[in-house]
Amino acid sequence: MSDVTDISAKDVKALRDLTGAGMMDCKKALTETSGDVDAAVTWLREKGIAGAAKLAGREATEGTVQSYIHANGKIGALVEIDCNTDFVARNEDFVAFARDIALHVTAAQPLYVTEDEVPEDARAEELRIAASQLDNVPEHARERAAQGKVNKWLEEVVLLKQRHVNEDKYGGKTIEELRAELSAKTGENVVIKRFSRFAIGA
Amino acid sequence: MSDVTDISAKDVKALRDLTGAGMMDCKKALTETSGDVDAAVTWLREKGIAGAAKLAGREATEGTVQSYIHANGKIGALVEIDCNTDFVARNEDFVAFARDIALHVTAAQPLYVTEDEVPEDARAEELRIAASQLDNVPEHARERAAQGKVNKWLEEVVLLKQRHVNEDKYGGKTIEELRAELSAKTGENVVIKRFSRFAIGA
Repeated sequence: MSDVTDISAKDVKALRDLTGAGMMDCKKALTETSGDVDAAVTWLREKGIAGAAKLAGREATEGTVQSYIHANGKIGALVEIDCNTDFVARNEDFVAFARDIALHVTAAQPLYVTEDEVPEDARAEELRIAASQLDNVPEHARERAAQGKVNKWLEEVVLLKQRHVNEDKYGGKTIEELRAELSAKTGENVVIKRFSRFAIGA
Repeated sequence: MSDVTDISAKDVKALRDLTGAGMMDCKKALTETSGDVDAAVTWLREKGIAGAAKLAGREATEGTVQSYIHANGKIGALVEIDCNTDFVARNEDFVAFARDIALHVTAAQPLYVTEDEVPEDARAEELRIAASQLDNVPEHARERAAQGKVNKWLEEVVLLKQRHVNEDKYGGKTIEELRAELSAKTGENVVIKRFSRFAIGA
């Protein structure tokens, strides 16, 4: 039997801020999880009460900086992955995720984190090149074909659209899919903020 | 007694290319070092025959990428340090130097590697601010005083002009001094090519 009186108003407020769920739901969640706020977030998410929308809107001001240096010392990457709380930032899974992203960046050479970051002129140039390669495509199908080529290019250069290079571990999932999974698991907004990749002679 | 006939024309040519020293000096250096080209470079440098100028002119196309992540996972840096040969790039001292530069960058927050990289407008803005703070300085001394303030600012933001944060280990030497020492020790052109520094919330 849970004792409702153990639940502090402060925890209820924190949980409401974290999830956007109503007061009664938050009290119930905390009761079910013996007052553990993080577990209560998960409980609310599992019940579909705490929406991902609310989580996505929370500012990601905590996080971790991690790196990967290839064994030969010729290539390496630095990444910053943000989340909402220091608690999650220090979580083993979160740090491991950040390191795996650094490894991925080292190998997969993305140019941008998100599609939004792709400069308009780079995209226009890619579209121009794509269009110039469609002489054998019927006139009416060219626009769609060119856009298809540009989408393929975006999947190569945008980190979130790339499939993680470690196929054995991640089964061909995209970085965005892995990010979303970690977000659901931690109940926090996980943001791949930035990366830097250096290679000798490049 | 050294045997001069052991010295190959190929090694003499390599040594001349490496150091810019004359043929007779190179033969003598190789004789003194039993034909060891790397030792001969050091010998020539020690004798003041191989100029640093020549070394500095050699293209630094090899190197190492190293990183430092602070224990709290909130700050980290990635650096690329270049040299002339893969042999030196894999050298323990060289890699340790690169890691110590990454640690330094993490702590000291430089903005540029060299003074040449400081944008003209950033320098002009700094000079303008400095000039505005000299009301108590006599008119004729103001230009020099303002320049002094700018130089002080450069020592704060230019990596090569900063003193290494590990004073116990490096005794207050600047990064440029440490770079030059490593260059002399390895007989190669050591170039701090670039760095990247991430901090959570910055």
